[in-house]
Amino acid sequence: MEPSPGGRNGRRTQRSSVMPIVTVQQGPRDVTLKRDLVRRVTDAFVEAYGVPAETVQVWIHEVPADSWGAAGKLTADK
Amino acid sequence: MEPSPGGRNGRRTQRSSVMPIVTVQQGPRDVTLKRDLVRRVTDAFVEAYGVPAETVQVWIHEVPADSWGAAGKLTADK
Amino acid sequence: MEPSPGGRNGRRTQRSSVMPIVTVQQGPRDVTLKRDLVRRVTDAFVEAYGVPAETVQVWIHEVPADSWGAAGKLTADK
Amino acid sequence: MEPSPGGRNGRRTQRSSVMPIVTVQQGPRDVTLKRDLVRRVTDAFVEAYGVPAETVQVWIHEVPADSWGAAGKLTADK
Amino acid sequence: MEPSPGGRNGRRTQRSSVMPIVTVQQGPRDVTLKRDLVRRVTDAFVEAYGVPAETVQVWIHEVPADSWGAAGKLTADK
Amino acid sequence: MEPSPGGRNGRRTQRSSVMPIVTVQQGPRDVTLKRDLVRRVTDAFVEAYGVPAETVQVWIHEVPADSWGAAGKLTADK
Repeated sequence: MEPSPGGRNGRRTQRSSVMPIVTVQQGPRDVTLKRDLVRRVTDAFVEAYGVPAETVQVWIHEVPADSWGAAGKLTADK
Repeated sequence: MEPSPGGRNGRRTQRSSVMPIVTVQQGPRDVTLKRDLVRRVTDAFVEAYGVPAETVQVWIHEVPADSWGAAGKLTADK
Repeated sequence: MEPSPGGRNGRRTQRSSVMPIVTVQQGPRDVTLKRDLVRRVTDAFVEAYGVPAETVQVWIHEVPADSWGAAGKLTADK
Repeated sequence: MEPSPGGRNGRRTQRSSVMPIVTVQQGPRDVTLKRDLVRRVTDAFVEAYGVPAETVQVWIHEVPADSWGAAGKLTADK
Repeated sequence: MEPSPGGRNGRRTQRSSVMPIVTVQQGPRDVTLKRDLVRRVTDAFVEAYGVPAETVQVWIHEVPADSWGAAGKLTADK
Repeated sequence: MEPSPGGRNGRRTQRSSVMPIVTVQQGPRDVTLKRDLVRRVTDAFVEAYGVPAETVQVWIHEVPADSWGAAGKLTADK
């Protein structure tokens, strides 16, 4: 395979797969942390898939602690 | 089953496909715009698929500018 | 309920399917109702699939009445 | 509005919240198990929220073991 | 910012809201129908929000009839 | 702030935010690429949020080229 200009490790961009959409479900977090996350997750796609950073979108859905849970309990009640 | 009267081009409703759920991820917008969007997106399904408008649901998830981004940057920072 | 390797009706846990993620789209509701829902939905997975409650996550996305609709109309306008 | 006859505990249906959409992300499972799950999850909504069963939709997205993972590893590799 | 040329009714593009992502959950359909749908849904955004068509992405998740249902029943069993 | 055992850069784990769920919408890709992606995306959360890798789940929804598009056109038609 030829080196891709976008891919650090020389993988070809697979055209049918460009424009990955990343949706994160999490509790609320500080904007500083989210800024860092969006940068790092985008880098993960650039490095793993060799796609340009411009094609990666990250959407963070922050769900309050009284609206999600595991093991049958709301996080707010733990 | 008869061709649906809702379908501009007389396509049959495919029963196994009724009740499409549409989820939109976007930045916050005015209710006037969202009202218009929900009407137009519903029309798009009625016309393309021939399903009754009643079966189409549209859910808009508004994500603030500090919680989504492209190209590794939060929209709030652009 | 007895802890069983296969759930109430003796089904085996299918390892490749553990950790179901449940996402609910709904209008806003009181925390009391959401607490009850998370418990009951988790029980539904434990009983149907025989997975431990700890592996089930439920995320409730509450969408205000001016951001979703059916039949081409916002719920807020009905 | 009268208390919903579908609700075991007589809670009023909150009109702005009718029509919950449930989306499940899981590994592939047998249709017998999915049939049981859809019935039980729907019951969970009827009992917790007092909504009619007809308003509850459940969508199961089955993701193969080579397309999801936890702890940084694909489930297929565990 | 100038009114977007993409908007039929001259609404301004709201910069924080560009790039809407549309996710559709539906039963399987013919590619001809999906092609028509993607075009019409994109037009709906262009006309309602005044965003360029290039910023609208539509993702259709087709769920087989034995993996979704309403009223507690799989669509495959109806 | 004290160093978090899970966080490379010493951020505290915010308890209400543990267990982020990451959902990726993309075209089909080779398992080798997906394996690399899941590892790198998980690392991104560990480093940005200081959460243990075990709490991060990544779900990849692969959508065929005839089921998604941008600019009003199916990817399969481009």
